[in-house]
Amino acid sequence: MSQTLLSPEDLEAALRNVGAERYHNKHRFHARQYSGKCSFEEIQAWALNRYYYQSMIPIKDAIVLTRFTDAEDRRQWRKRIEDHDGLKPGDGGIERWLKLTDSLGFPRDYVESTAGILPATRFAVDAYVTLVRDRSPLEAVASSLTELFSPNIIGERMSGMLANYDYVSKDTLAYFSYRPTQAKRDADWALDYVKSHATTVEQQQAVINALKFKCNVLWAQLDALWSAYVDHYLPPDAWVPGTIAAPRSKAA
Amino acid sequence: MSQTLLSPEDLEAALRNVGAERYHNKHRFHARQYSGKCSFEEIQAWALNRYYYQSMIPIKDAIVLTRFTDAEDRRQWRKRIEDHDGLKPGDGGIERWLKLTDSLGFPRDYVESTAGILPATRFAVDAYVTLVRDRSPLEAVASSLTELFSPNIIGERMSGMLANYDYVSKDTLAYFSYRPTQAKRDADWALDYVKSHATTVEQQQAVINALKFKCNVLWAQLDALWSAYVDHYLPPDAWVPGTIAAPRSKAA
Repeated sequence: MSQTLLSPEDLEAALRNVGAERYHNKHRFHARQYSGKCSFEEIQAWALNRYYYQSMIPIKDAIVLTRFTDAEDRRQWRKRIEDHDGLKPGDGGIERWLKLTDSLGFPRDYVESTAGILPATRFAVDAYVTLVRDRSPLEAVASSLTELFSPNIIGERMSGMLANYDYVSKDTLAYFSYRPTQAKRDADWALDYVKSHATTVEQQQAVINALKFKCNVLWAQLDALWSAYVDHYLPPDAWVPGTIAAPRSKAA
Repeated sequence: MSQTLLSPEDLEAALRNVGAERYHNKHRFHARQYSGKCSFEEIQAWALNRYYYQSMIPIKDAIVLTRFTDAEDRRQWRKRIEDHDGLKPGDGGIERWLKLTDSLGFPRDYVESTAGILPATRFAVDAYVTLVRDRSPLEAVASSLTELFSPNIIGERMSGMLANYDYVSKDTLAYFSYRPTQAKRDADWALDYVKSHATTVEQQQAVINALKFKCNVLWAQLDALWSAYVDHYLPPDAWVPGTIAAPRSKAA
């Protein structure tokens, strides 16, 4: 990569290029999902596994809070925790994700136990949490920048899933209708932060690498889903299609 | 799982049962490898990725050293670091692994950079390192107990690879000829430690779960190899067969 200092605009372009090449909207599982080729069981496995990612996001963000020495940075970042955990019981992104797993027939206590997720899901998500704990605050912020690319994937995913799966409704996908606005606010702030704080070649390289790492975290989760539920090579203890979840009930 | 306290012998049986069900000798990649069905590129990818695991073992073991308050425990555990790092340059398990990657055509600086490994390899191995840092010393010791099962897989792997791949020799597999004796000494010590220190139901459950976790760490690495190099769905930045490594040179 570049060994010269980039302007803030060129740094932004480099970061956007990471997304263009590596964001998980380019993964074969995503194409299968939004084009209607996933089986019901594959959608179930996706939602069950991704619950673990959702559930760890506010914990990840709380760790980031511990890394900021500036109260204004913490105030801004705190909004992310509020979005995911909500302002009261029954509110927030995790709750909305559970409404999705509800609709797919999983009992909440099973989903929340994370007992049936793929080990590779756990390893990838935990690697993200470890990054924000062990690397610089700047890299922690940069790793969140996949949100720059999420509006596209969410649009494709929502329209594709609504068109192709009759058990999916706007209601069960409520999580995704909230996210674009939240993600844009957060990504704009994080991008400004990174552009103003990455002022050396080394820091710029570090933020680009942190974003690549985060893209790998998302990519590896879809690789593991494919291996287990499309290629049908289930690792020990992973959720077995046909078990645990109640029989499919078609939603309106 | 059991909610009653197990005798040390029953705990050992429960631990051995974890291996019987989940050790990676039961993975389809292992069967493919020892039966001679792997392509040269698949063997290269296996050795390249597994280098990362090998390289992190003494770091993992150094973290375990920091968790022991008893000098005798540390003296015993220190042998593991000596085995992997050697007593002088050119010696030790990591060096012997590099002789294997040498023989497969990889430049050492490329292997040591770990630039071409699969993200899922990194996530899985780092999860093992995190476990020994964040969980109890007892769980850290228990997670090493996959060595109880390694003599079998090593025997199968060595005889199978020597019989089936003409570029593999006893010399290039020297790593494996050293391991069974070391692994037996280490596993005997660790098993005694676990049997004498896991004296509550909760501790016994924790050690069984730590060993399952470690089996998942090994299993997930083979899942990722299969996805990338048998199913040919390469994640971004992973080593591309035919690049980096020098043309195959047949060893005696």
